[in-house]
Amino acid sequence: MNGFTLWFTGLPCSGKTTLARKMESYFRERSRNVEVLDGDIVRVCLTKGLGFSKEDRNENVRRVGFVCNLLSRNGIIAIAALVSPYEESREEVRSRVKNFVLVYLKCSLDMAIKRDPKGNYKKALKGEIEKFTGISDPYQPPRNPDITIETDNISEDKAIETIVGQLRKLGFTE
Amino acid sequence: MNGFTLWFTGLPCSGKTTLARKMESYFRERSRNVEVLDGDIVRVCLTKGLGFSKEDRNENVRRVGFVCNLLSRNGIIAIAALVSPYEESREEVRSRVKNFVLVYLKCSLDMAIKRDPKGNYKKALKGEIEKFTGISDPYQPPRNPDITIETDNISEDKAIETIVGQLRKLGFTE
Repeated sequence: MNGFTLWFTGLPCSGKTTLARKMESYFRERSRNVEVLDGDIVRVCLTKGLGFSKEDRNENVRRVGFVCNLLSRNGIIAIAALVSPYEESREEVRSRVKNFVLVYLKCSLDMAIKRDPKGNYKKALKGEIEKFTGISDPYQPPRNPDITIETDNISEDKAIETIVGQLRKLGFTE
Repeated sequence: MNGFTLWFTGLPCSGKTTLARKMESYFRERSRNVEVLDGDIVRVCLTKGLGFSKEDRNENVRRVGFVCNLLSRNGIIAIAALVSPYEESREEVRSRVKNFVLVYLKCSLDMAIKRDPKGNYKKALKGEIEKFTGISDPYQPPRNPDITIETDNISEDKAIETIVGQLRKLGFTE
């Protein structure tokens, strides 16, 4: 089967990492080669030194896109889980990366704030974290995602089922 | 066959890019999946913003190492062509990357200066480029390379033959 890039975008706490890891397991169980590029890890290993300005966030997205492309074009499944808040850099990556599938995790800000496992929204609302997407920094919903999952009201299993269904239609999984 | 990382280290103009590209062709002809991470490209796509201090050079090496590992552990051949002047970060990468093969391109400074296709040594000698390895910045020869090629007096074909011979012994190519 061909490699491809499954790119999760959405607010903090919209479920990107959770669904990325579930999809990773799904593919591993099917003996596919898969790598997850998760925002938190990426900022240590790949983009240390970049901040949270628009410019730096876009550079972060481009850089992860570059790596996804190296993997995808060699038959690997690359799964990116990044806030990636700007349409401009998402579209730039989409145009460059072979077999790019954009998954928008649509989640209300209320629900994201309710989840908040690390307490980051709480801190951002108190002004203790600057440039926090959804609170003090913008999030541009994608205009043309390949898949949209409304994570307020959907179970993880149902979300995975929806994503896998779409990947099947695209010929990326059996 | 297994993926692995072939890492070329050496002075500027020691032949890293040339041999990396030759090895890339060698593997492509044999239908192996291969990617070259060349210093010049890497500094645009992966490590923009890093300079040439010891710290930044080491971060450059670590970051390319991270990507090589993603490729190698998925069965891809990653070829890195980087000055990578410090033992410390080369050894760090070696310890982290699956199937890491270090190739030292040993080249006299005289010969490197004679080659100098982009005229960078000339500029460095005039003081127009700062922190240029071999002139105004150190190069630490590796203590334990897996392969050493003395590029002053060897043809490209002979160099490739030597590298391939070693890779065969390691079980990385037929």
